[in-house]
Amino acid sequence: MKYCSECGANVTQKKPENDEHLRFVCDDCEIIHYHNPKVIAGALPIWQDKVLLCRRAINPRHGLWTLPAGFMENGETLAQAAARETYEEATAVMENIKLYTVISLPQVNQVYMIYRGNLANLDFSPGIESLETELFDEKDIPWDELAFKTVTETLRHYFHDRKNNQFPIHDFCILKK
Amino acid sequence: MKYCSECGANVTQKKPENDEHLRFVCDDCEIIHYHNPKVIAGALPIWQDKVLLCRRAINPRHGLWTLPAGFMENGETLAQAAARETYEEATAVMENIKLYTVISLPQVNQVYMIYRGNLANLDFSPGIESLETELFDEKDIPWDELAFKTVTETLRHYFHDRKNNQFPIHDFCILKK
Repeated sequence: MKYCSECGANVTQKKPENDEHLRFVCDDCEIIHYHNPKVIAGALPIWQDKVLLCRRAINPRHGLWTLPAGFMENGETLAQAAARETYEEATAVMENIKLYTVISLPQVNQVYMIYRGNLANLDFSPGIESLETELFDEKDIPWDELAFKTVTETLRHYFHDRKNNQFPIHDFCILKK
Repeated sequence: MKYCSECGANVTQKKPENDEHLRFVCDDCEIIHYHNPKVIAGALPIWQDKVLLCRRAINPRHGLWTLPAGFMENGETLAQAAARETYEEATAVMENIKLYTVISLPQVNQVYMIYRGNLANLDFSPGIESLETELFDEKDIPWDELAFKTVTETLRHYFHDRKNNQFPIHDFCILKK
């Protein structure tokens, strides 16, 4: 950030009164511009023993496999965001969705919120951000070609929890090495 | 938003290619400025049969009672944010915290994530944003003087769940009338 989005003057990083954090503060109108973590809402779409993955048509991680997920938008709920991303990336509709993994990524200022749910039907196909959409059995998951650790960890939890038919919400943190 | 924070030129609201949403786009450098929901992390601090509330010293809702909560900062996890807010507003330390309520507020572009946990000790006192901090039995909760519906609903769930000693995570949405 170089300029104030309200008045166009220069901004300077400084600590406002009673604030522990450096913020961008306008040199002229003195407004404080806060930058906060973003929420990525996603889905683990299930059909019988299989899960639906999408192969990415966009960067980063072009060509690798992912769960449908993307930035939550203003004006929607978490569950709506997860359903929207599933439709945008795989033209798929889910039923009975439940929050499943909550993953803090403090080094990139993101929180993933992934919902598991059943596919309503087999009408799925690649959306504009996907090259392919495909159902995978556990034994066929392309573990070495997954796009993000959040996807790997969500799938690991799912295949473990499925053995016990218990799906607690998993709240954890992933740090880069 | 009126000016591009990268180059200082004017911005115009338009729909970028392959995007359903109006965004602020720079007239000069063409960068797209996204605005997304913010996460509010908070806590339900418990001591035996009581819960800790803070009376707000700041606006909005000055003078009303709340749970410690505030905007998640870049560089922290959800649990760290909840613990930090509890310390800032009530100089209190919690143990064994667990995610408890996840509340989408689509009309104000916020997601509340409230953790329940036990107070580590009785060393609590009003932080700079609080007028008072006090432990309340269920029968003494000032229901008509609570600052936010997210607080009311989290307390309602807690006193209900406590009867069964089962504390599932509650994921729901609150809409303004």
